[in-house]
Amino acid sequence: MEKRIDVGVLGATGMVGQQFIRLLENHPWFRLTWLGASDRSAGKRYKEATNWRLDGEMPAGVADLPVHECKPGDAPPIVFSATDASVATEIEQAFANAGHWVISNSRNHRMDLDVPLLVAEINAEHLRVLPTQQRLRGWTGGIVTNPNCSTIGLVMGLAPLRQFGIRKVVVATMQAVSGAGYPGVPSMDILGNVVPYIGGEEEKMQTETQKILGNFDADRIAPMGANVSAHCNRVPAIDGHTVVASVELETKPGVEGLKKAMAEFAGRPQELKLPFAPERPLVVTDAPDRPQTRRDALAGNGMTVTVGRVRECTVFDYKFTALVHNTIRGAAGAAILNAELLLEEGYVQR
Amino acid sequence: MEKRIDVGVLGATGMVGQQFIRLLENHPWFRLTWLGASDRSAGKRYKEATNWRLDGEMPAGVADLPVHECKPGDAPPIVFSATDASVATEIEQAFANAGHWVISNSRNHRMDLDVPLLVAEINAEHLRVLPTQQRLRGWTGGIVTNPNCSTIGLVMGLAPLRQFGIRKVVVATMQAVSGAGYPGVPSMDILGNVVPYIGGEEEKMQTETQKILGNFDADRIAPMGANVSAHCNRVPAIDGHTVVASVELETKPGVEGLKKAMAEFAGRPQELKLPFAPERPLVVTDAPDRPQTRRDALAGNGMTVTVGRVRECTVFDYKFTALVHNTIRGAAGAAILNAELLLEEGYVQR
Amino acid sequence: MEKRIDVGVLGATGMVGQQFIRLLENHPWFRLTWLGASDRSAGKRYKEATNWRLDGEMPAGVADLPVHECKPGDAPPIVFSATDASVATEIEQAFANAGHWVISNSRNHRMDLDVPLLVAEINAEHLRVLPTQQRLRGWTGGIVTNPNCSTIGLVMGLAPLRQFGIRKVVVATMQAVSGAGYPGVPSMDILGNVVPYIGGEEEKMQTETQKILGNFDADRIAPMGANVSAHCNRVPAIDGHTVVASVELETKPGVEGLKKAMAEFAGRPQELKLPFAPERPLVVTDAPDRPQTRRDALAGNGMTVTVGRVRECTVFDYKFTALVHNTIRGAAGAAILNAELLLEEGYVQR
Amino acid sequence: MEKRIDVGVLGATGMVGQQFIRLLENHPWFRLTWLGASDRSAGKRYKEATNWRLDGEMPAGVADLPVHECKPGDAPPIVFSATDASVATEIEQAFANAGHWVISNSRNHRMDLDVPLLVAEINAEHLRVLPTQQRLRGWTGGIVTNPNCSTIGLVMGLAPLRQFGIRKVVVATMQAVSGAGYPGVPSMDILGNVVPYIGGEEEKMQTETQKILGNFDADRIAPMGANVSAHCNRVPAIDGHTVVASVELETKPGVEGLKKAMAEFAGRPQELKLPFAPERPLVVTDAPDRPQTRRDALAGNGMTVTVGRVRECTVFDYKFTALVHNTIRGAAGAAILNAELLLEEGYVQR
Repeated sequence: MEKRIDVGVLGATGMVGQQFIRLLENHPWFRLTWLGASDRSAGKRYKEATNWRLDGEMPAGVADLPVHECKPGDAPPIVFSATDASVATEIEQAFANAGHWVISNSRNHRMDLDVPLLVAEINAEHLRVLPTQQRLRGWTGGIVTNPNCSTIGLVMGLAPLRQFGIRKVVVATMQAVSGAGYPGVPSMDILGNVVPYIGGEEEKMQTETQKILGNFDADRIAPMGANVSAHCNRVPAIDGHTVVASVELETKPGVEGLKKAMAEFAGRPQELKLPFAPERPLVVTDAPDRPQTRRDALAGNGMTVTVGRVRECTVFDYKFTALVHNTIRGAAGAAILNAELLLEEGYVQR
Repeated sequence: MEKRIDVGVLGATGMVGQQFIRLLENHPWFRLTWLGASDRSAGKRYKEATNWRLDGEMPAGVADLPVHECKPGDAPPIVFSATDASVATEIEQAFANAGHWVISNSRNHRMDLDVPLLVAEINAEHLRVLPTQQRLRGWTGGIVTNPNCSTIGLVMGLAPLRQFGIRKVVVATMQAVSGAGYPGVPSMDILGNVVPYIGGEEEKMQTETQKILGNFDADRIAPMGANVSAHCNRVPAIDGHTVVASVELETKPGVEGLKKAMAEFAGRPQELKLPFAPERPLVVTDAPDRPQTRRDALAGNGMTVTVGRVRECTVFDYKFTALVHNTIRGAAGAAILNAELLLEEGYVQR
Repeated sequence: MEKRIDVGVLGATGMVGQQFIRLLENHPWFRLTWLGASDRSAGKRYKEATNWRLDGEMPAGVADLPVHECKPGDAPPIVFSATDASVATEIEQAFANAGHWVISNSRNHRMDLDVPLLVAEINAEHLRVLPTQQRLRGWTGGIVTNPNCSTIGLVMGLAPLRQFGIRKVVVATMQAVSGAGYPGVPSMDILGNVVPYIGGEEEKMQTETQKILGNFDADRIAPMGANVSAHCNRVPAIDGHTVVASVELETKPGVEGLKKAMAEFAGRPQELKLPFAPERPLVVTDAPDRPQTRRDALAGNGMTVTVGRVRECTVFDYKFTALVHNTIRGAAGAAILNAELLLEEGYVQR
Repeated sequence: MEKRIDVGVLGATGMVGQQFIRLLENHPWFRLTWLGASDRSAGKRYKEATNWRLDGEMPAGVADLPVHECKPGDAPPIVFSATDASVATEIEQAFANAGHWVISNSRNHRMDLDVPLLVAEINAEHLRVLPTQQRLRGWTGGIVTNPNCSTIGLVMGLAPLRQFGIRKVVVATMQAVSGAGYPGVPSMDILGNVVPYIGGEEEKMQTETQKILGNFDADRIAPMGANVSAHCNRVPAIDGHTVVASVELETKPGVEGLKKAMAEFAGRPQELKLPFAPERPLVVTDAPDRPQTRRDALAGNGMTVTVGRVRECTVFDYKFTALVHNTIRGAAGAAILNAELLLEEGYVQR
C-alpha cells in the first residue's frame, strides 16, 4: 500500500479509545490524525485531556494532537467509534450521514437489521447489507459494528461448527475486569471474589451470537435459529474472557472432527492477509489445563482465540473452553480488522 | 444431651483434618479426644506434628493431644476421616471392620453402591442402606461419605427441584483455591488467572449428583437418570465455590414457583434441629449480583448455600447461581452434620 | 450497666458508617437509635438510603430507622462521626456546640491542638485537654478523634517503646483496599499490582504519630520530638494494613526486652475492661512469617494489633512488622473504644 | 558481529532456566546450543524434560535440543547458570575449572571475595578481579554472578547517589511471586495477603548491596561501608519487585539534583551499546503514583528500573520508590547483559 489512510477515533480519551490509539500506532495502512471526544476535552491537546490508563506510555505521535468535538466536519473518511453508549447513536449516525465510515465498538447499532455485526473471519458476507443500509437511511457513509467482548469468544468457537448444524448452546463466562472500563469494577467487589452478574451481558451474548452466525439472505441478515443461554460472571483477572460452552449439533463429527474443523478455521482476513489478521484465528490446544487467561490471552497479538478441552458432553454433544483477549479481539483490534476488510473489499475507496 | 461423645479425626494434620478440628471445637455433642495421622506424625504432640494453616490459632484443647497411627485400637466409636485418597480405602475399611463409624470426606467410597453419599437435608433415607453395607461386608461399624466440595453446591440447588422432574443439567463452576488443599494451587498458576481444569472434578460432579439425587429402593440406591454435564474451573478466590446451572424440568413451576420451592427447602437436620444444621439450608436472594464468593460463603456459618439469579433459560427451562463454602458445607461441616444425623437417627448408640 | 445509652452515627450510609452500624449491633452499653446522612438520604428509611457493602446482611434493627439530616436537633448525646472530610468540620462543630460528644473517625480535627487524637491504650491522659477544648470553643459537648487507619498500626507498635526513648522511625506500609472506601480503588489499578502512593497518607502518619505519642502537659498536648518518615503503599488485600518499621532508641532493651515490653503493653481499656478492649492490645508472634494480612487481621475481633519479626536493625536499633485491621481497630472499632473510655472516665454522663 | 557464539544453560528446565531460554531466543550475539539439567532430565529432548511454565509457547529452536548432565564435556565456552543452590557450588566450579565462563544467577558464589557480583552499569570495573580469581583458584575460565532479584532494584536506585556519599539506607520491598519460582508460593499463602518474610532475602539485600557498591581496589573488592537495613515482603503480584528506600547522604544535592543524577545515570552497557542494554537503565517518573508493578515492570523490555516519588525524607535526606522486573533485570536478563559485557570487554575470546 503506497500511502496510509487518515483515520480518526471517536471517544478517544476513554479506555477503548486509548486501546484504539495504542493499536493504531504504526499501523501499515492507517494513520491516526484525528481525535474526537466530549465537549469537556475538546480544544485541548490529547495529553492534556487524557489520563492514560494503559500499561506503558501514551504513544508519542498522539500526545500533541488536538481533541475535537465528535462532529463530522473535517474528520477523516474512516472513524473508529469508542463513544459512550449514551451518545453513540446520535454521533455515529451523524458521521455516517456525512459520508464517513464508522467502525464502531459501541453497542447501539449492533442489532439493527441493516447494520453488519461483523467478525471478519465469520460473516464477511454480511457486509453486503451495506447498500441497503445506505439506501434506507439515505447515508453516503455507513456503520459497521463488532460484537461485545464476551460474545466474540463464543462465536469464534462456534463458527467452525456451523457446518454440523448448531442446535443449542449453553455457555458460561468468566470475564476480566478490563471489560468494564475505568474505573469500572471497584476492587472491593472483585478481589478474591466472583460476581455472577454483568448488566446486559447475557442478553447481548445470546442475541449477538444469533445475528453473527446468521445468513445473509437477499437484502437482510437472518439470525441463526438455534438458541443460546448465557451465564456471565466477573472474575479477578485483568485481560481475557474465558468461555465454557456445551453444544448440541445436528451431525456429530466426533471430538477429533470438531478439533480439526476448529484448527482449520480461517476466513477472508486470512485469505487477504490483512495486517491485523492472525495467522490462525483459532488455535486448538491439547494441554489439559489450557487455555488460561493470563497465559493465552495474548496469542496472535491478542487476535487469536485459543480453544481447549474439546470433549464430549454428557448432556449435549460436545463441550469446550475458549479464551479471547477482550480488549483486543473483543474490542479495538476487532474493529481495526473490520476496517481493513472494508477497505480491501472495496467498500471504502482509498 | 447429658454428656459429649468422644470422636476422633483421621488425617488430622492435613488441611481438611485441621478444618474438622476447628469445627469440632466446642461442639455440643462431640468431644475430640483422638487424632490419627501418618506414621511420620504418629507419636508426636499435635502441635509438634502440625503446621497450622487455617486463619487464627490452633484450638488450645488439641495442641497437646498425642497423634496416633491410623489404626482402630483405642480410637473412639465415631471417627471423621480426612485421610488422603491414596490410603483412605484401607484405613477406613479397617475402622469400619473394627466397629467404628467412619464419617468420611474422602472420595474413595463415595460411589460404592452400599455406602451412603449423604447430604443430610437431601437423602437422609439413603442411610437405610447401612444394614446392607454391614451385612455384605461383615462390618459392625460402617462408612458414610459426603460429596465433593463442588457437587454440594449443585445438589443443594437441585434438590428442591426433584418434585418437578429433573431432566438435564448443564453446570459450570468457579472454584476457590482452598479446595485444592495446601500447598495446592501455586500462586503463579492462579493470580489474575482462570484455570479451566480440575483433575477428576467434572466426573465426580456428574456421577455424585446422580447418586445423591437417586432413590433408595428396597436395599439399594438407584441413581437419578437425568444426565449432568459439568465444566469445572479454578479462580483466584480463597473460600467458596460458585456454581451456575441450567436445568430442564418435566413440569414448569415458573421462576416464582422455583424460588418458593428453593426457599422452603428443608430436611431432617432442620426437623431434628441438629447442632450443625443451618436454619435454612438454602437462602434465595433477589439481589441481581449475588451470591458472591467473599460476601456470601459464610452464610449460616458456612452451612447455608446461597442461591441467586433464578431466571428463565433460553435453552432449558431455568437457570440459577449457587454458592457453597467449600471447606465447611463442602467438606468438614457436611461430615459433622452427617455424624449428627447418624447419631440422632439411632444408627450409632450413645 | 443497667440500661444502654442511645447513640447516633453521622455519615451512616458510607462505608465507615456501615462499619459503625455493624460493630454497634448488640453493643452492651450503646444502643444505636439515630442515623444522620446527606440531604440526599435524609427522610428515607436506612435500608432505602443505603447500598449495604459489608459482608453479610444489614443488621435488622437498623433497616427501618429513619435517616436524618446531619443536624443536632434530637440526636442522642453521643454521636459517632463517619462524615466525609468535605463536610465534617462544620457538622462536627455544630454537634459539639449543641452539647453532643462527637467521637469522630474523620481527619478534620485530628491535628487541632485542643482535640484529643485518642488511642485508648496509649494516650488516655490526652482526654484531659477536653476542658480546654470546651472553654476555648465555648462548647458544652466536644470532639474526640481517632487516628488514620495506617497510623494506628505504627503507634501501637511504638507505644511500648516510649520508655526506651524513641529517636527516629522509618516506616513502610502495605495497605488494604478497604482503607479507600467504596468504590475506592478501581480493580484495574490494584489487581496484581502495588501502588506506591496514597494521597495525604504519609503526612498523616508522620504527624499523627507525633501527636499521639506526645505528652499532655498542663493544658496542651506536646507532640513527640522524634521524626517519623513514612512510605505508604496500596496492595491487593481486602482488610488489614501491614506496617514495617525501623526504630532508633535512646536505651537498648535488646530484642527480648523489646518483645517483653510489647507483649506486656496494656492501658486504661484493659484496666477498665471496656467492652471493645481486646484482652491484649498487642500480640507478639515468634512465627518467622507472621503477622499476615488475611490470617491475623481479625485477632481480638479486629482490635488486637499483631507484631512479629522483632529483630535487630543494621541501621537503627530494632525493626518489626505490625498488622492492624484497618476498618476495625483503624476506624470504627477504635472510635467505639474511645467512646467507652470517655463514658467510663466520666467525661460523658450516663 | 559476524557469527553468533554458542552458549549453554545450566539448570535449563527450571523457571530461571526457562527465562534464559526465552530471552536468548533471537539474541544477536549468542546462539543457544547446549542445555544442562539434573540427571533426571539428562538424555531427554528438552520438550520432553520440561513443563514449560512461562507465558506463551516454548521457543521452537530449543524444543528438540538434547538435555545433558551438568558436566563440562562438550559444553560451549559460555554457560549461563540457573542451577539450584544445593548443587551450584560444585557444578559452577567444575565448569570454571574446565575453562568455561559461568555467568551465574545462583547465589552460591555471589559473596566470594574474588567473584564479581556484577551489575553491568554499576560496577563494570569489578571484572578486574577476574585475573585474581583465575590465579587463586587455578582456573582457566571463571565465574561472574549477578545479584538477587530484590537487591537489583535497590542498587540501581542507589548507584547514581554514590557521588553524594551514601551513609545509611533503610529499605522495604514488596516482591512478586515469580521470584520464588515454581511451584513457589502456594496461592493459599498469598491471595489477598502480604507475607512479611522471605527466607534469607534481607541478608542478601544488605550484604550484596554493600559489595556491588564497593570499590575495586588493587586486587580486591572493598564493600561499601554504609549499612543497609531491609524489610522484605511478598505480595500478590506476578512480576516486578517494588523497593521503597530512605537514604542518608554526605552531601545534599536536593530533590531535583537527585532526580537529575538518576535520570542521567548510564554505564558501560550504554557506552558499548550492548544488545541487552536498555537505552536508559533508570527512568525517573514524576507521576505521583508510579512506578507500579504491573504497569512499569516491562519498561525497556524489563531491563529498565523505574524510579518515582523522589522526595525529601523527614528522618534521612531523601526517599524514593524503585521497580524492577525481577525475572528479567533481576535474573536472566541481568546475566545476559553481564555476558555481553564480558565479551565486549575482551574477557572472553570470540
